[in-house]
Amino acid sequence: MYVILVYDVSEKRVVKMLKLCRRYLNWIQNSVFEGQITEVKLKELMHEAREIMDEAQDSIIIFSSRNERWLDKQIIGVEKNNLDNFL
Amino acid sequence: MYVILVYDVSEKRVVKMLKLCRRYLNWIQNSVFEGQITEVKLKELMHEAREIMDEAQDSIIIFSSRNERWLDKQIIGVEKNNLDNFL
Repeated sequence: MYVILVYDVSEKRVVKMLKLCRRYLNWIQNSVFEGQITEVKLKELMHEAREIMDEAQDSIIIFSSRNERWLDKQIIGVEKNNLDNFL
Repeated sequence: MYVILVYDVSEKRVVKMLKLCRRYLNWIQNSVFEGQITEVKLKELMHEAREIMDEAQDSIIIFSSRNERWLDKQIIGVEKNNLDNFL
């Protein structure tokens, strides 16, 4: 399964959330991740995310598609992905 | 065409970018938008976005799919969309 994950999390919890998401997916922008993931791993990720976030304040949106080819991706401006290895 | 747009723009340009994107798409989270849009309108939006952004610093990622049904969406936590009318 191919997913796009975006989070909007209070600054206090951002570092934890970033680290969590990077364990499962590729970081492509600020608070945006993408990647292939199994349903089991995605459930694991969502379970861990719920433990970090405050569900009354924060939010996570996950778009998923069975096939990555059903989605096109265009980037305008900087490709943050290139910096990924340095952080 | 169904698109998901995420931007990462310097604070100075955020308000302009937010206003622009909301003219074309639905705001669903912090810097994330989605919606049905024609290719012509999407080009128009990207053209206007390029005028606002600094392409050396900012970035916009647009995922597009011919069919919205090819994508599932799950939200954990707050649904910002509900506040959209008040802003």
